[in-house]
Amino acid sequence: MSHTTPPYCFETTIKVRDYETDSQGIVNNANYLHYLEITRHEFCEEAGTSFAVMQARGLDPVVRKVEIEYLNSLRPGDSMRSCLRFRREGARFVFDQHIFNAATGEPVVRAVVTVVCLEHGRLSRGDMLAEAFEKYL
Amino acid sequence: MSHTTPPYCFETTIKVRDYETDSQGIVNNANYLHYLEITRHEFCEEAGTSFAVMQARGLDPVVRKVEIEYLNSLRPGDSMRSCLRFRREGARFVFDQHIFNAATGEPVVRAVVTVVCLEHGRLSRGDMLAEAFEKYL
Amino acid sequence: MSHTTPPYCFETTIKVRDYETDSQGIVNNANYLHYLEITRHEFCEEAGTSFAVMQARGLDPVVRKVEIEYLNSLRPGDSMRSCLRFRREGARFVFDQHIFNAATGEPVVRAVVTVVCLEHGRLSRGDMLAEAFEKYL
Amino acid sequence: MSHTTPPYCFETTIKVRDYETDSQGIVNNANYLHYLEITRHEFCEEAGTSFAVMQARGLDPVVRKVEIEYLNSLRPGDSMRSCLRFRREGARFVFDQHIFNAATGEPVVRAVVTVVCLEHGRLSRGDMLAEAFEKYL
Repeated sequence: MSHTTPPYCFETTIKVRDYETDSQGIVNNANYLHYLEITRHEFCEEAGTSFAVMQARGLDPVVRKVEIEYLNSLRPGDSMRSCLRFRREGARFVFDQHIFNAATGEPVVRAVVTVVCLEHGRLSRGDMLAEAFEKYL
Repeated sequence: MSHTTPPYCFETTIKVRDYETDSQGIVNNANYLHYLEITRHEFCEEAGTSFAVMQARGLDPVVRKVEIEYLNSLRPGDSMRSCLRFRREGARFVFDQHIFNAATGEPVVRAVVTVVCLEHGRLSRGDMLAEAFEKYL
Repeated sequence: MSHTTPPYCFETTIKVRDYETDSQGIVNNANYLHYLEITRHEFCEEAGTSFAVMQARGLDPVVRKVEIEYLNSLRPGDSMRSCLRFRREGARFVFDQHIFNAATGEPVVRAVVTVVCLEHGRLSRGDMLAEAFEKYL
Repeated sequence: MSHTTPPYCFETTIKVRDYETDSQGIVNNANYLHYLEITRHEFCEEAGTSFAVMQARGLDPVVRKVEIEYLNSLRPGDSMRSCLRFRREGARFVFDQHIFNAATGEPVVRAVVTVVCLEHGRLSRGDMLAEAFEKYL
């Protein structure tokens, strides 16, 4: 009997923008948090919701924790494949997010991002978000 | 008889952040719009107001036009002296903004930024902003 | 007899990233300089060159001047159509860049961006860049 | 007998820039990685070195891992106190970085950032960096 890793439930391709590199000629570490966010937001859209819609309903998903490992660098001209799967742990939504160099398949970044939901400013159980994500859970 | 340039009514010092440079090793051109904005916002604070306060009163200053010349580059480690003067032209506030290398005095950027005021989403005469800036006009 | 505007020689679609908006809920003015740069760099790639390639050959195109008018705002969820045409004026390359709301066709930004070429750190006539752009001039 | 937490070896004050907030009205999560980087780089300068100097000597410190918890939000107008201590673990430099709201003292972010040193592109033991940080280790 073996454990198998659940498959990704969403992936998207993002191209490095030249201004995202720093004086070391590689993408600056902070930009990967942008890439991870873009991926989560596009996933939300595919799931049929969006941050604008959620905010209009009084729901504010906020990032509580990020653990990110930088494995290989991206440079100007590179594209990445950004993959995501997630699980619910009580009030928290935990996203496993992996970024690969689109050309070489090389792993670039491995991250775990924990999101909680504020509803009208207070921590909620996140049922509204769970509902949006229902078919993926 | 000669024209004299009116003096600056505000100046501040800003240090380049390493991540603001791009792969050419110099500060990316878009970041200068950030520096200009920081300078205007600090000026607002010195004038006794702030964007948060203005927005709470239904006033939204928005940038309508920027003309910016790049004269010399800034690099990691550099600091700049960012200077501002402004005038009112009807509903528009026109800011002359000059940035100099703080160490050498060399001119870095020369910009003219035109700001208009929206009040509850509609173009206003900007009297509320003019009042805040009264002592500088 | 009438003057006709030359057609665009390149256009691309860019989607607003949620983090590019500011506390006013609209895309921050500095980000449009990023959009304009992305468009020029993608155009370079279509023309068969890239900033990395140019830099490897000792050529450094730098922005000398930007005149940008902000006509309408973009918000989270919006996409833009970013269009470009350009002409050579001696050592300078002058880009007319127009951004439209992809959904409504509304004009968002109208900019003129002047680029010069440094070769090994000195202002050049830009023949190397003109060669790359030959079929568009 | 008790363990005591070693004191911070560096701290600096950073003011939120209005453009760093997103449509939720709070500082976007990625910007905290910028704040952490600014703090490390200022610490390097206080220690008598800089990224430019290190790069000129063939030394490239790169971020390998970040663990960051978001405890409270910062908003436009806020300032933060950004504190740092670090230790060497073999080839790795591990920075404990804590950010507090400068006005209220409230904890904002708690992060552990692991940095390794590349020398001429290869992983090094980091002796050059350890030397620079000698008096703090």
